[in-house]
Amino acid sequence: MNYQKPIHNIFNDLKEIDDPGEVATYIPELAGVEPDKFGVHLTTLDDQHYSMGDSDEKFSIQSIAKVLSLTFAYKMEGDYLWQRMGVEPSGAPFNSLTLLEYNNGIPRNPMINSGAIVVCDILISHCTHPKAELIEFIRNVSGNRDIHYSDRVAESEKRTGHRNSSLIYLMKAFGNIQNDIEEVLDLYFNLCSIEMTCRELARTFLYLAGYGSCPYTSDNVISVSKSKRINAIMQLCGMYDEAGEFSFRTGLPGKSGVGGGIVAVLPNHYSIAVWSPKLNPKGNSFKGMEFLERFTTETEASVF
Amino acid sequence: MNYQKPIHNIFNDLKEIDDPGEVATYIPELAGVEPDKFGVHLTTLDDQHYSMGDSDEKFSIQSIAKVLSLTFAYKMEGDYLWQRMGVEPSGAPFNSLTLLEYNNGIPRNPMINSGAIVVCDILISHCTHPKAELIEFIRNVSGNRDIHYSDRVAESEKRTGHRNSSLIYLMKAFGNIQNDIEEVLDLYFNLCSIEMTCRELARTFLYLAGYGSCPYTSDNVISVSKSKRINAIMQLCGMYDEAGEFSFRTGLPGKSGVGGGIVAVLPNHYSIAVWSPKLNPKGNSFKGMEFLERFTTETEASVF
Amino acid sequence: MNYQKPIHNIFNDLKEIDDPGEVATYIPELAGVEPDKFGVHLTTLDDQHYSMGDSDEKFSIQSIAKVLSLTFAYKMEGDYLWQRMGVEPSGAPFNSLTLLEYNNGIPRNPMINSGAIVVCDILISHCTHPKAELIEFIRNVSGNRDIHYSDRVAESEKRTGHRNSSLIYLMKAFGNIQNDIEEVLDLYFNLCSIEMTCRELARTFLYLAGYGSCPYTSDNVISVSKSKRINAIMQLCGMYDEAGEFSFRTGLPGKSGVGGGIVAVLPNHYSIAVWSPKLNPKGNSFKGMEFLERFTTETEASVF
Amino acid sequence: MNYQKPIHNIFNDLKEIDDPGEVATYIPELAGVEPDKFGVHLTTLDDQHYSMGDSDEKFSIQSIAKVLSLTFAYKMEGDYLWQRMGVEPSGAPFNSLTLLEYNNGIPRNPMINSGAIVVCDILISHCTHPKAELIEFIRNVSGNRDIHYSDRVAESEKRTGHRNSSLIYLMKAFGNIQNDIEEVLDLYFNLCSIEMTCRELARTFLYLAGYGSCPYTSDNVISVSKSKRINAIMQLCGMYDEAGEFSFRTGLPGKSGVGGGIVAVLPNHYSIAVWSPKLNPKGNSFKGMEFLERFTTETEASVF
Repeated sequence: MNYQKPIHNIFNDLKEIDDPGEVATYIPELAGVEPDKFGVHLTTLDDQHYSMGDSDEKFSIQSIAKVLSLTFAYKMEGDYLWQRMGVEPSGAPFNSLTLLEYNNGIPRNPMINSGAIVVCDILISHCTHPKAELIEFIRNVSGNRDIHYSDRVAESEKRTGHRNSSLIYLMKAFGNIQNDIEEVLDLYFNLCSIEMTCRELARTFLYLAGYGSCPYTSDNVISVSKSKRINAIMQLCGMYDEAGEFSFRTGLPGKSGVGGGIVAVLPNHYSIAVWSPKLNPKGNSFKGMEFLERFTTETEASVF
Repeated sequence: MNYQKPIHNIFNDLKEIDDPGEVATYIPELAGVEPDKFGVHLTTLDDQHYSMGDSDEKFSIQSIAKVLSLTFAYKMEGDYLWQRMGVEPSGAPFNSLTLLEYNNGIPRNPMINSGAIVVCDILISHCTHPKAELIEFIRNVSGNRDIHYSDRVAESEKRTGHRNSSLIYLMKAFGNIQNDIEEVLDLYFNLCSIEMTCRELARTFLYLAGYGSCPYTSDNVISVSKSKRINAIMQLCGMYDEAGEFSFRTGLPGKSGVGGGIVAVLPNHYSIAVWSPKLNPKGNSFKGMEFLERFTTETEASVF
Repeated sequence: MNYQKPIHNIFNDLKEIDDPGEVATYIPELAGVEPDKFGVHLTTLDDQHYSMGDSDEKFSIQSIAKVLSLTFAYKMEGDYLWQRMGVEPSGAPFNSLTLLEYNNGIPRNPMINSGAIVVCDILISHCTHPKAELIEFIRNVSGNRDIHYSDRVAESEKRTGHRNSSLIYLMKAFGNIQNDIEEVLDLYFNLCSIEMTCRELARTFLYLAGYGSCPYTSDNVISVSKSKRINAIMQLCGMYDEAGEFSFRTGLPGKSGVGGGIVAVLPNHYSIAVWSPKLNPKGNSFKGMEFLERFTTETEASVF
Repeated sequence: MNYQKPIHNIFNDLKEIDDPGEVATYIPELAGVEPDKFGVHLTTLDDQHYSMGDSDEKFSIQSIAKVLSLTFAYKMEGDYLWQRMGVEPSGAPFNSLTLLEYNNGIPRNPMINSGAIVVCDILISHCTHPKAELIEFIRNVSGNRDIHYSDRVAESEKRTGHRNSSLIYLMKAFGNIQNDIEEVLDLYFNLCSIEMTCRELARTFLYLAGYGSCPYTSDNVISVSKSKRINAIMQLCGMYDEAGEFSFRTGLPGKSGVGGGIVAVLPNHYSIAVWSPKLNPKGNSFKGMEFLERFTTETEASVF
C-alpha cells in the first residue's frame, strides 16, 4: 500500500486547523517547546518510509518510554512481573493515588506512573548499572546510538515530581518497592526524559509490528507471545484515560506522552509516530489523535 | 487452517481438570444449570464448523447479548449514542454505583449494566415494539428464527435486580433516562434472558469477524467502521474487570456472560463460542478463559 | 439569662446583610418561598420565649424531621436499630451512593437520606398505620395538634426523588430494606414534607434539651440516655457535610433542612429554631448558620 | 461528686474481662508493651485526683499529642490555620490517601495524620527551634518538666512511616506544604513519640476542661473560644473512624492514640485518661472505650 498520499493530505489539512489543545507546562522544558511543531513518520516492515513536517526533530517522548522499559523488564523477569502489577485499564487518571490505595499498592498496569515506577524497581534489581543498561537496551532496539536521556528534563521532573514520590512511598508502605526510593525515582525520571525524533520513534517501535523482531536487523527483541501481550497492554492502557476512545477511533495499539508524541503499530505492517505538542484535556496530543483517526479510517487500518 | 485438532486436544485436556470456578447462583435458573456442561463451536467466514461437547445445548447468554443490543442501537442512533455513554473501560465491577455517580450518570461504556440499560432506553425511543423488534433484529443477524427470550429468566432477573433499579434511578436523577423506568428495565431483563447454543452464538457473532456483514447471506448488519468500533469496545470493555487479562492472554475481542458463555472473534477469520458455567472470581467462565487462551496460543491467533 | 437583647441585635444585623445564599429549587414548593423570610424562636426549659421576624410562619422543615422519626424508631426498636445503620459522620454528600455502596448498604448514620429511609422501613415494621402513627407521635412531642404533612410537597418530592429511589434499591440489593419500596418511600417523602413555624419547631425539640422529657407536660418522650445519644448524633451528623464546621462555630448539637430551617439545643437550657431559606453551598441556611454562630458566641453558649 | 467508687468498680470489672483487642505491632516499641497494662487517672478542676492500676507508668501517647500541637499552632496562627485544613470528620481511615486526593491536598481535619503533618509544617514556619519549642509548650501546659520525646519511638516511626511520606508528598504536590519535607516529618514523628503517664495526660488536658486555662496555675493556655473549638474538633474527629460511636457511647470530647491511651474531658469538671494497649479493630483501646462508656453512663456525665 502506498501511504504517501493519505499522510500528505491529512497532514496538510491538520496543519491549518485551529488547535484547541494546550502545551504541557509543569516543567519549563516542555512549556518552552514551539507549540506548532508537527511531524509524522511511518516505517513499514519492508523498510519503506513516509515523513512529513518536523519528523526529524528530537522531542521528549515522556511516557512513551514506558513501553520500552516494560519490554526490557518483561524480557528479564518474565511472567513473575505480573505479581507486582496488573494488566487492566485503570479507569482513572494516570497518577491516581486513590486507585493505588484501593488496590493495596499493586498498580493496575505498567503504563500508568505507579506501574512504570515498579518496572524501574525491577530493572534495578536485575541490573548492575540500571541507567546505562536501560539506555543501551533502547539503543539496540532502535538500531541507533544517538538516543539519550535529557539531564535537564530529568532534573526538572525530579523537582516537580512530588506526586510520583507520593505514589512510590504508598507502594513502599504496601511492600511493593524493593530498592532505594531515590534510586528508583532517579531511573524513572531519566526514563521519562528520553528524546527521539518521529523517525527514530517509529523505527524503535517496529519490533511490536514485527512480532518481537526488528525486521532490518533480524534481531529478536522479545518473543512473539510477549510482543503480542505488550501490544494488548498498549491497546488497553496506553492512552491514559482515553484508551477506549483511541481504540474506538483508530483501532490500533498505541502509546502517548505529554510531550505530544503518539506512536501506534499495525501488526505485520508498520509503526507510525506523530508529534504535536498541544494536548487535549485527557493529556493526549490533539493533532496526533486527529491524524491517527483520519489516517486509519482512510487506509482502513485496524486490528479489528 | 485446520482448527479441529487444537480444539479437540484442548477441549479434552480441560474436560478433565478440576475446575475451581463457581456457578452463578443469584437466580435459580442459573444456579440449576449442570455445572460440568462444556461446549465449544468455531465458525469460519468460509463456512467451516468445528464443535466439541455440549455445543448444541441452549444456555443463557446473559451479558453477551449486550453486544447485540448495542449493534442495533448504534445502527439506528449513530454516533449520537456516545453522548449518552462512553467507550472507556471501567476499572470497576460491572454494576458499580460509585463510578456512575462519579461520572454524573454517564456510563463508562455500553458493556456494563448501566450502559446496556441506556442502550435499552435508546431502543425504546426508536422502536414501536421494542421487545419484538430487538429479538427480530437478533434473529436476522443470526439467520435463525429459533432464538427467544426466556420468560422465566427475565422474571427472575427482575425479582432480584434491585441493583439495576438503583443504577437506572441514579441515571434518571442525572437526566440520562428518557423513557418509563419499568419499561426500560423490562427490556433490559429480557435482553439478558436470551438463550443460544454455542453453535448459534458463534454464528450470530460472525458479522463482527466479517467487518459488519454476514458472509453466508451477504447481509450487511452494520457498516465496516461501526463493526470495527464494536470490536474495539469488546476488546476494552467486554470481560468485566478482566478485559485486560483477556486481551493479554488471548489477544482477541470478546464478550462473556455470567451464564458461563464467552464469544470471541478473529477479524477476517472466525467467531468462536465457549460455554462452561463455572465462573472465576471476576465472573468469567473459568474453562472458557482457559480454552481461549490455549487455543489462541496454539494457533497463534491474535489481533496483535 | 436574658436572651432578648442578643437575639434582637443579631437578628437586626443579619436582616440587613447581603445574603449570598440560594433558595433550594429542586421542587417548586421550595423554589416558590419568599427568599427574604427570616425568623427565630428560642424556648427555655422554664417556659420563656424569645422571638423575632417570621417566627410564626409555617415552613417546610424537611430533613429536620429525621430527628423525630429517629426518636420514634429508637424508642420502639431500641439498640437493635444500630444493626441497620451506623452513628458515624459521613464525610460525603447526604445522598451519596458511593459511600452506601462502600459500606454494603449500611447507612453511615440516620441523618443522611439512606439512614432516614431505613428508619422509615423500621417504622413500617412496627406500626399498623405508619403514616398516621408517626404524625401522631410528632404532635404529642410538640404538644400541638396543628402539625401536618404537606401533600403537595410530598408529591413533589416523590416526582423528583430518583436519587432516593436509587438509594433504597441499593439497600434492598444488600438486604437492608424489609418492606415494600413504594410504601417506605411514601412514608419518607411525607416525613420530609412536614411543616412547622420556628416557634413550633423550637417547642418540639425541647425534649432534647430536657434529657428526653418535655418540661411543660412532664411527658417522657424518650429515656435520658437515648436523648443524649440523639444529641450526639445531631452533633456529629446533623448538618450534612458541615457538621464539623457547625460544631466548631456554635458548639451545639443541631439539625438543618433544605427548607432553610436549623434547630439547635443547649442541653439543660433551651431549644432554638432559625429559618431563612437561602442556603450556603453545603445546603445549610446561610443566615441560620450566621445567627447561631453569633448568638452562641455572644452568650457563650456551648456544650464544650 | 465522688468519682472514686465508680472508677474503682468499673476498673476492677474490666480488669478481669477477656480483652479481644490486639496490641499495635507496626513498630517494636509498641509491640513490646505488656498487653495487660491498665491504668486510669481522673483530675478535677478543683484538684481532686482518682487513680487505679498502672496510672503512673509512662506510655507512648501517639496521636493524642496531635491535640497539643494543634493548640500550639492555633494559638500562633489563629484562624488562618483553617485555610490549610478543615474541621470535618473524615469518614475514612486516618491515613487515607484517597480522601486527601479527593480534597486536593487539604486534610479534612487536624486529628488525622495529614492534618497533623500540616500543623507541624505551620509550627516550623513559626518557630526558630520547632522541636524544642513544641516540647517546651507541652511541658508548660502540663506543669511538668519530665515530659520527653522518645528518640527510639521517633526513629522507629520514621523507618516505617512510608504512608506518611506518601501523604506529605501528595500535599506538597498540591502546594499545601511549605517547609522541607524531611524536617516536617521529623517533627511529626517526634510529636507522635511523646510519653506520659495517665496522671500526666489527664493533668495536661485539664485546660480543655477549664475553658482554655489551667486551674492550678491560672495560666491561660488558649482563649475560651479556641478551647471550645478544640473540644468540638476532638468530639467530631478525635477517635479515628469511631468518633460517632465514642460520642454516642460516652458523650464526651476525647482523643485516642494507638499506644492504647484515651483522654476525655467533661468541660467545667474534669479530664480523664485511660490506658490499655489492646486496640479494637478501629484502632482505639478496647478497655479504654469500655471504661469510658461505663463511667460516663454510671456518673451520667455527658456534654449532651
